[in-house]
This record gives sequence, structure tokens and C-alpha cells, in this order.
Amino acid sequence: MDTRQRIENLREVMETRGIDAAVVFNFENQFYYSGLRAITYSRPIILIVERQRQSLIIPSLEENHAEEKTDVDHLYVYHEVAGKSDAATDYRELFDEVLSKLDPGATVGIEYGALPADYMMRIQDQGFPVADIGGEIVRLRAIKTEEEINMIRESGKLVSGALGRTIEQSAAGRSELEIDDYGNQFLFDEISRKYTDSTLDYFVMSPSGTRRTNMPHVFSNTRKLEQGDVIIHSRQVGLSGYRAECERTFFVGEPTERQREVFEVMLRAHIAALDFIKAGVRASEVNEAALAVIREAGLEEYVSHRTGHGIGIGQHEEPSLRFDNELVLAPGMVFCVEPGIYVPGVGGFRHSDTVVLREDGTDIITEYPRDLEHLIIK
Amino acid sequence: MDTRQRIENLREVMETRGIDAAVVFNFENQFYYSGLRAITYSRPIILIVERQRQSLIIPSLEENHAEEKTDVDHLYVYHEVAGKSDAATDYRELFDEVLSKLDPGATVGIEYGALPADYMMRIQDQGFPVADIGGEIVRLRAIKTEEEINMIRESGKLVSGALGRTIEQSAAGRSELEIDDYGNQFLFDEISRKYTDSTLDYFVMSPSGTRRTNMPHVFSNTRKLEQGDVIIHSRQVGLSGYRAECERTFFVGEPTERQREVFEVMLRAHIAALDFIKAGVRASEVNEAALAVIREAGLEEYVSHRTGHGIGIGQHEEPSLRFDNELVLAPGMVFCVEPGIYVPGVGGFRHSDTVVLREDGTDIITEYPRDLEHLIIK
Repeated sequence: MDTRQRIENLREVMETRGIDAAVVFNFENQFYYSGLRAITYSRPIILIVERQRQSLIIPSLEENHAEEKTDVDHLYVYHEVAGKSDAATDYRELFDEVLSKLDPGATVGIEYGALPADYMMRIQDQGFPVADIGGEIVRLRAIKTEEEINMIRESGKLVSGALGRTIEQSAAGRSELEIDDYGNQFLFDEISRKYTDSTLDYFVMSPSGTRRTNMPHVFSNTRKLEQGDVIIHSRQVGLSGYRAECERTFFVGEPTERQREVFEVMLRAHIAALDFIKAGVRASEVNEAALAVIREAGLEEYVSHRTGHGIGIGQHEEPSLRFDNELVLAPGMVFCVEPGIYVPGVGGFRHSDTVVLREDGTDIITEYPRDLEHLIIK
Repeated sequence: MDTRQRIENLREVMETRGIDAAVVFNFENQFYYSGLRAITYSRPIILIVERQRQSLIIPSLEENHAEEKTDVDHLYVYHEVAGKSDAATDYRELFDEVLSKLDPGATVGIEYGALPADYMMRIQDQGFPVADIGGEIVRLRAIKTEEEINMIRESGKLVSGALGRTIEQSAAGRSELEIDDYGNQFLFDEISRKYTDSTLDYFVMSPSGTRRTNMPHVFSNTRKLEQGDVIIHSRQVGLSGYRAECERTFFVGEPTERQREVFEVMLRAHIAALDFIKAGVRASEVNEAALAVIREAGLEEYVSHRTGHGIGIGQHEEPSLRFDNELVLAPGMVFCVEPGIYVPGVGGFRHSDTVVLREDGTDIITEYPRDLEHLIIK
């Protein structure tokens, strides 16, 4: 990953904004700027980018990992073991130390939405003014490089294959967790066979039945599928940290007439948004492209979320395809397009595909049939 | 889950500390106090506990979910869809509104280590003093009820079974991700057969070979096991949100003499700590029980992390079994005991088991052979 270019872009923003040091705490942003992705953040990690140097505060058990993955100028290591002579055992001590080396009156950029209060108070205690750098980082992350797009594209293949395996193996009597696992097995087999030196993250949920599909976000559970169930199978896969998403609404056995009607409206809305989205249009307009279809069918009251969101390192990234987002979309942005309709007593309905915006069009990088006849499992 | 009792305990602390409202932002703490566990927190959720009432700020797509899982007094819902009359579309607006209803001069408890700067500034903007409530919540969460212990015990069975399946299916030529998946399949089968209305979280990593086992925390990747490899297989399972951990160091083929020696030292340290830990001793003493064995064998310089940590809703919870933690352990606490030794050129060595502290002893709730002969896969 070209972290050097990314840091340069960040420094340009810092220069323009008069920010002398940026404290990067959000772990997605840390991965983006350093290449290091830790397993858990129960031991804090803090990246500090100044105009001339980068420092990383890191627990000792990540020291080798950080040396392998990053090229920061200074590693400040804190230890959990006594007797390492005068080594630090508290990250706060190291954070104070890094701050104390800044010029008096330096402006410190922080992520207002991520940096915990404790750190902010330490910055203020040393008399440094703070400024929000979070929005700028979001903006920089939103435009993907070709390298990033290629990684997301590979994840798109994996997530589509896994989704297909799950849908095809679904049957009454199998639980939500069991059908998830069919797709998971596909992932593990596929990634072990086709990729080298790669990691795998994935997220999956398959709420089933009328009541559970009406909750857009619930973990899969042990509920067993029943004949006639509607299911929203939702998946994300991240190959070495870059994600794609694919979702399909499907049925075990025949849907009711009303379910067919709502499904068809959702499908038309989904296709309308996929057809409409491109560089140069506003995020709000993509949202409206889907919503207009749903409104015309008289189902607007059953919409409870935006039409989509950006994706990349994060499960949900900005830009948001939301009614009040007037941002003009640009080449290099990657979106999940997923209008949803949730009708009590009937079910929830949502497809999602991941799409890359190009100068001259769009690439939909996830692939599985969207039409109802392909999504009824007998 | 008895969230009512938990809220009462929190209010007692608030009373004692003179805190009028507690803003609970950390998602583990939110689950603990409300019963609600969201899939993603890209749309912020905020729980505010006052002396007389509880409020939850929640995105509209979690509204049904929150109504089903929680019994808060007020749900403040923000929407992503236009035209919901005068409904809020921004969580910050709702947060400001909840704050504005507090008595002037009220003290607001916040988690210093979790609440983002933006929220703290909003509290300060309305003139309320803040106080840290994070440490108290950690302390309250550390003592588990019987209900919680029973959930962790079930996770202990699941994680032990999955670990066994992975180890027994390991062989040269299979990748780290593939061996992980054998255990994952066990989990999905087992949970679907034995439990109802339950969710499953799990975490697994299997760094293999000398270089990778020397990094205590790295994601499994596509590296294929080779004859003679040392592997640290590490797993956590959470059944409906409560976790247990089990880890074993094992070999594919025969270890070297030096590997045998280091393994045996790790094993003695692990058993020493498991034998020593109980209610009434200090956390630092448990750490020392393991370290003394390692020190005597001349391997202390290869220790890079504490002997263990609490577990429950969190992957790593306080109390920490660390050299500088003088806390006296109490019945109802649950720990992962996992001293590790990492010798460059030789390999990393660590077992972990989960143990519940009782009035009259301890229950080790994870189970798999620990001795070398059982951990050499031919």
C-alpha cells in the first residue's frame, strides 16, 4: 500500500489548514496511513503525523508487527512487563511525551468523532489548540486508487461467490447460522487456493421470516428457516482489509402475492439507483432515484434507511447516499447501493451491490441474479 | 439479562460520586446496560442514564430492534429519510436535546477512554462539568452474575470443541485459514443443533511457523503449514455476546529440542498461574506466578505481554493480570490465563484457558490437553 503518498496528501491538507500535528486514532484511518492493522485495540495504538515525521505509539506485543508493516520514523513502545530498564509501561506517558516535543502553540488535528475525551484533555492540558481533521481524512479516503480498487474488486468476486453458495444451500430446516456457514466455507476454500499472503475478514447476517427481516441489522441466529420464508442474506468480505458487499433477498418456497409486489418494487428501485449512479451526480440524487420508484408504488413509509454508502476499509464509509448529502460524486469512489423496504407483516426486502465509479461509467463488481425467479429456492 | 439490576448498581455509583447523568458510549457498555447489541456503530448509538430515567438515541433502522431488546424510558430516533414530518435527522441534535433537559450545573459522567471529543465538547458547550465513569463501569462489569457465568461456560464448551477440531484437522499443506475453518464449521453445526435463539461471535487466528508465531497478534493468512511448524491456535467464541477463550500451541511434525524446552517452560508457567489464581490474591501475584517459572528458566527476556486478562462481553476486559495491578481478585471474576514466550528463530509459545473465580476455588471452563505429546500432529 502506498502509505507514503497518503501521508503526503494528509500533509498537504495540514499545511492548508494550519495544522502542525495530526493525531490519528480511528483504527481504519491508522491502517490507511500506516499499513498496520491490529487484531484488537484493547491496548491503544496512536499515530501522530507531523509535517516532518511520523510517530507510532504501540504496545510491545505489536512491535515486530509494526516494524514489518509500517515505515514510521519513531516507534514509541510501551511494555507490560517489569524490568525493561526505564521503558514506558503506560501509553498515556508516551502520548504526553510526543506532545511535549511539539512547538508551543502548535495546532493539533484530531478526529472529533473518534478521539476519546482523555486524549483530547491531554492535548488541551499542554495548551495546544485542536482542530477537526476527521472530515478531511474521510474525504481523502473516499477516492480510491487503482490498487485499492483492485483489492475491492477481488473482494467483490469472493463475496458474490459466497453469497451464491449460501443461497443455493438454503432449505427449510436449516438455521440462519448454518446457511451462513456454507458461504463461509466457500470463502475459506477459495482464498486458500487462489491468494497468497492475504487476510480475510467477513461479515454475514441472514435474518429470516417476516419479523426478523423487518430489522435491517440483526445478527444471524439459530432460527431455522421455514417453508415460505423471506430471507435477506447480507455479506461483506474484506481481502487484506478492503471490502465489498453483496446482498440478496430470497425465498424458501413460494412468496405471497404481496411479497412478490414489494420485491418487484425493491428490485426496480435497486436497478434505478444502479443505472443512475455515476461521477458528476449528487449523492442525494442517487437516493432520490431509488426513492422515486418506491414512492410511486405507495411504499415510501416503509423506507427506514438511506439508499447506500461508501465502502473500502470501512464497512460503512462516507459518502452516504442520503437525501441531505449534496456532495457531487467523483471517479474512484466505491458505493454499496441498497435501497430497502420493510413492511410489517410482509417482510423486509433489500438487495445490495458494490459499484466503482469511473471517469466514463461504472463497474458493478458484485454479481448474482437479482430477479425473483432466480431467488426462489424450491 | 438483568439490565435493571445493572442500572441500579450504576445509579448507586452515580449517587455516591455526585453524578447526575451518565453518557454510555462504549458499545460493550451499551450492551451491558441496555441489552442491545448493534451490528455496526457507523450510525452512533448513545445511552444516557439519569437517576430517574434512561434515554437511548438510536438510528431509525435500529428502532424495532431497540424496542424488542431494551426497556429504556425514552427512545430518541433519528432518521435517514426525508419527510418524516419534523423528525430529527442528526444524532447530534438529539444529544444536545437530551442534555438541554438536565438541571443546570448537573455533573455528566462520561467514559474518558471511549467518548469521542465531539460529544465531550457538546457537554462542555452547555456548561456541564464532566467526570469519568469509565473506571466504575469496568469495575462493575468485572464481577459476573451466575447468569453471565453460565453463558460464558457455554462459550467455553464451544470454543474448546472448535479448537480441538482445528488442531486435529491440521496438516502440512493446509493453510492457516483452512485449519481455522474446520473449527468454525464445528461451531456452526454445534450451535445450530444445541441452542435456540442465540447468536454467535467468534475470533480465531493461527499464526504458523517461527516468524509468525513470534507476533502474538496477527490475522490468519493463506500461508500453508509446513512439516515441523509450530502453530499458536487462538480462539474466542461468544454465545449471545458472552465470550470464552482457548488457545494451544501445537506442532505439525516433530518439534526441535529447543522448541520442546521452551514449550515445557511455557506449560509449567501456564499451570503455575492456573493453580495459583483464586479470589483473594492480587492480579500482580498471578502474573508473578507464571513469570517466576519463566525467569528461573532464563527466558524472561522473551516475555512481551501480561499473563492474562478478564473476559466477558469484551475480548479483553479488566482486570489485567499485569505486574503493576495490585487489585485483589474476587469471586465472580473471569480470566484468560495465557503467559507467552516468544523466542526469535525458535517460535512463539502460548496456551490460554478461561477460568471462573468462585468463593471456594476456581472452575476452568475450557478444556483440551495441554501436554506436548497430545499437541504434536503427525
